[in-house]
Amino acid sequence: MTFDEAKRAINEQLKPKALGEEEVSLLEANNRVLKEDVASTLDIPPFNRSTVDGYAVKAEDTLGAEENQPVKLEVCGVVNVGEPPKISISKGEAAEIVTGAPVPEGADAVVMVEYTEEKDDELRVYRTATTDENVMKRGTDIKKGETILKAGQVLGAPEIGVLAALGITKVKVFKVPVVAVLSTGAEVTEPGKELPAGKIYDINAYSLSTAVRESGGKPVYLGVVSDDKTELHKALERALASSDMVVTSGGVSVGPRDLTPQVVNSLGEPGLVVSGLAVKPGKPTTIALIGRKPVFALPGHPTSALLIFHLLARPVIQLMSGRPAKETTTVKAKAGTRMFSAKGRRTFVMVKLKRNKSNRLIAEPVETGASGAITTLAKADGFVEIPETHQFIDTDEEITVALLKDVI
Amino acid sequence: MTFDEAKRAINEQLKPKALGEEEVSLLEANNRVLKEDVASTLDIPPFNRSTVDGYAVKAEDTLGAEENQPVKLEVCGVVNVGEPPKISISKGEAAEIVTGAPVPEGADAVVMVEYTEEKDDELRVYRTATTDENVMKRGTDIKKGETILKAGQVLGAPEIGVLAALGITKVKVFKVPVVAVLSTGAEVTEPGKELPAGKIYDINAYSLSTAVRESGGKPVYLGVVSDDKTELHKALERALASSDMVVTSGGVSVGPRDLTPQVVNSLGEPGLVVSGLAVKPGKPTTIALIGRKPVFALPGHPTSALLIFHLLARPVIQLMSGRPAKETTTVKAKAGTRMFSAKGRRTFVMVKLKRNKSNRLIAEPVETGASGAITTLAKADGFVEIPETHQFIDTDEEITVALLKDVI
Repeated sequence: MTFDEAKRAINEQLKPKALGEEEVSLLEANNRVLKEDVASTLDIPPFNRSTVDGYAVKAEDTLGAEENQPVKLEVCGVVNVGEPPKISISKGEAAEIVTGAPVPEGADAVVMVEYTEEKDDELRVYRTATTDENVMKRGTDIKKGETILKAGQVLGAPEIGVLAALGITKVKVFKVPVVAVLSTGAEVTEPGKELPAGKIYDINAYSLSTAVRESGGKPVYLGVVSDDKTELHKALERALASSDMVVTSGGVSVGPRDLTPQVVNSLGEPGLVVSGLAVKPGKPTTIALIGRKPVFALPGHPTSALLIFHLLARPVIQLMSGRPAKETTTVKAKAGTRMFSAKGRRTFVMVKLKRNKSNRLIAEPVETGASGAITTLAKADGFVEIPETHQFIDTDEEITVALLKDVI
Repeated sequence: MTFDEAKRAINEQLKPKALGEEEVSLLEANNRVLKEDVASTLDIPPFNRSTVDGYAVKAEDTLGAEENQPVKLEVCGVVNVGEPPKISISKGEAAEIVTGAPVPEGADAVVMVEYTEEKDDELRVYRTATTDENVMKRGTDIKKGETILKAGQVLGAPEIGVLAALGITKVKVFKVPVVAVLSTGAEVTEPGKELPAGKIYDINAYSLSTAVRESGGKPVYLGVVSDDKTELHKALERALASSDMVVTSGGVSVGPRDLTPQVVNSLGEPGLVVSGLAVKPGKPTTIALIGRKPVFALPGHPTSALLIFHLLARPVIQLMSGRPAKETTTVKAKAGTRMFSAKGRRTFVMVKLKRNKSNRLIAEPVETGASGAITTLAKADGFVEIPETHQFIDTDEEITVALLKDVI
C-alpha cells in the first residue's frame, strides 16, 4: 500500500473523531479543546462604565460650555469603582467618577477631569459633552447571549481570560484520548531492570509514550510484552479494554517470531486496515481497527517507529482530541548531500540542520544505522520526504524539511 | 524607562537563572530541562549484534567463496535474539543467526541468508565475507562513558528514547519555577462567585496563570486581593513565601487606590527595578526584586497585562526553568491599515491576520478598547512593534508580526 493510500485508508476506515466530553476547572483547561460554543451569560461591561476619571453629567446640561464660558453644575456626590452608585443625577447635577466606575442613573456622559474645575461642590465644565462620551455602555464589548468562543477552539491564555470574564470556572472540553503503549520483541527488556545478556533496553515504549503526550493524548505505559502469541494477545486485549487507542512497536517484520500483525488481526472486527507500507523506513507498519479503536503496530527500529508515529498516528490522536490534524512545521533548506530514495517507496531521510557561511540552512542526512542506531533519534532535527517518483534529491537542491524539534 | 532599558534592567538586576534540581520519572519528564550532562553507563549495542538474518562465521573461513564455488561449513547451532549465544564458533563452523541477535564468540562476520544454502547441518556459502560484515560491533552506536545528552536540553520524545536506551528511568531536571498570580483592584471579583453590582469578573489571574503554564512555570492562582494596603501587603508576603516569583495585575495606575508599586517596594530589598515604562500599552508596569524573587506588577487592562507578561515576564520564567529565553515566532505580513505609535513610546499594536486574494498575510489592528475590551484578547493573533523613532506604520508596509497564537 502506498503512503497516500494508507493515509486515505486511515481517514476512511479509522474515521478518527473527537471522543466524549468532560468538565474541567478553568485553571486546568490550558491546551484543552472546547466541546461546545460558549455564549455569554452576561453583558460586558455589565453596566455603563466610565472610561476616564472625571464627572458624570447629563450631556444636555453642558451644551454651550467652552473654555471661556463654563457651565456650572452642582456636585451631588462621588461614584467609586467597584460599587453601585448611591446617587442619581438630576438636571444641573454632576458626580465625581473614576475610570471603571458605573455611570450613575440620570447621567449619560463623563467629562474628563482636565476640562473641569471643582470648588465647594460647584463644578465648572469647560467643554460641551456629547451623549455617551467617555462611557462604555453596558454590553458594548460582549452582549448577553453572544457566542464568544467556538467548539473546537484550543484554550490558551486569551481564551481562558475570556471565559473568566464571563464568571465561568468550569468548562466542557473534549476528553483526552487514552493511548496504551507497549513494546514487544524477544530482544528488549524494560529500562530500570537489570539488562540480561543478549538483550537491549526498550526505547520505544518511552519515546512513543512521550510522542503520545506531545500529540495531545494521555499515554498509558505498558512496557515490554513477551512475543509469545498468547501473552501478546492477552496484553493487547487488556490494552484495548483500558484505552481509546493502542500503539505497539516491534514484532512486525517477517521473522518467525514477528507475530504482531497476526495477533492484532485476531483481536476483533474489522481488523487490519494497513498491512505493510511502501515507505522507507517503516515498511512493516501494520494498522488495524478493533471495534472503534485504532491499533498502530509500528516497526521496532526506534527512528522508524517515531517517524511513522509522527506521520500517521499523531494526526489520529489530534483528531480524537478534537483538534485539527496539524501539519508539521517545515523550513526550506538546501540539501548538503545527495540523498537517495528507495525504489518505488516514499522515502523519508532523517536530517540535521546547520547554517552555512551565508546563513542558509543546510540539511545533512543523519545516518540511520542498519540495526537501529539510537543516536539518530538524538541527532535528527527533522526529515525530508522523497516522493515515489524521484530517485534522489541532488546536492544543493532546495528542499522542505519537516521539523521534529524546535530548532529554528 | 524605555523598553530596552527595562529589558537590560531585568537581565542585570533580576539575573534570572535556573532554580535547583529535582529527580523525576522518565515517563513524566516530557518538556522538562536536563540538569546535567548524561553519560552512557553502557556500550550500545552491548554486544556485537547481527544486522541481518543469516549465518555467523569466521570471515577467513569464507575466503574464495563465490557463486560457482561455495565454501562448506558445519552448522553447529542457532543463536536466538534476546539470549546469550550457547555456542561458540570454531574454524569451519557457522551458526544460524537472526537480526538483532548477539554474534557468538569466535565469529566475526555474518553472511546474509540469501548467499547461503543449508542442508543437513552442512552450509554452503556463496560469497566471501569480510571481517565485521553485517555486524554492529559493541559500543558502535554509543560508547560507555560517552556524553549523549547535554545539560539544558529539553526532553522530547527522541531524548526520552535515548535515556531509555541507557536503562535510565529517573532523570535529574531543573525545578519548575512556582509563580504566584494574583489580581487586585476594587472593581474585580473572582469568577465563580456572584457578581456584585458595580463590579466585573477578574480576567487576569486566570489568563496570567495560563500564560505562566505556557511559559514553563507552575502557576499558583491566588485570586483577587482587596486593594487595602495592609491586605495587599500580607497577600504579597504570603505569595513570596510560597513561590519563586509573583505576578500581580491591577492597582498600578495613578489613582489614589493604585497602591501596588508602593506596597511592592515595601516588601524588602532591593525593591523596584522598573517603575513605569515608555511603552503603549503597559505604561504603569512595575517590576521589583524582593530578595531573589522577581515581582511583576502588571497593568489591570487584560490585553496590556498579557502583552507585557509575554514581552518581559515570560523570558524570566523560561530562564528560571533552565530554558533559553525563546524569541516569539514571527511572520511577515502587510499592514492592512495605517497604525500609529504613541509619541516617544515603544508601541505594540494587537493585530488579527487574514489572507488577501493573492494569499498574502494582511495584519489588521484589533481595537483594544479604552476601557479594556476583553474581546481583544480573543480576536488578536499577535502584535506589531513600532519603535519609539517611528510615528506610524503605513498601509501596505511590510511588517513583522509576533504571534501569540498558533495561527499559521
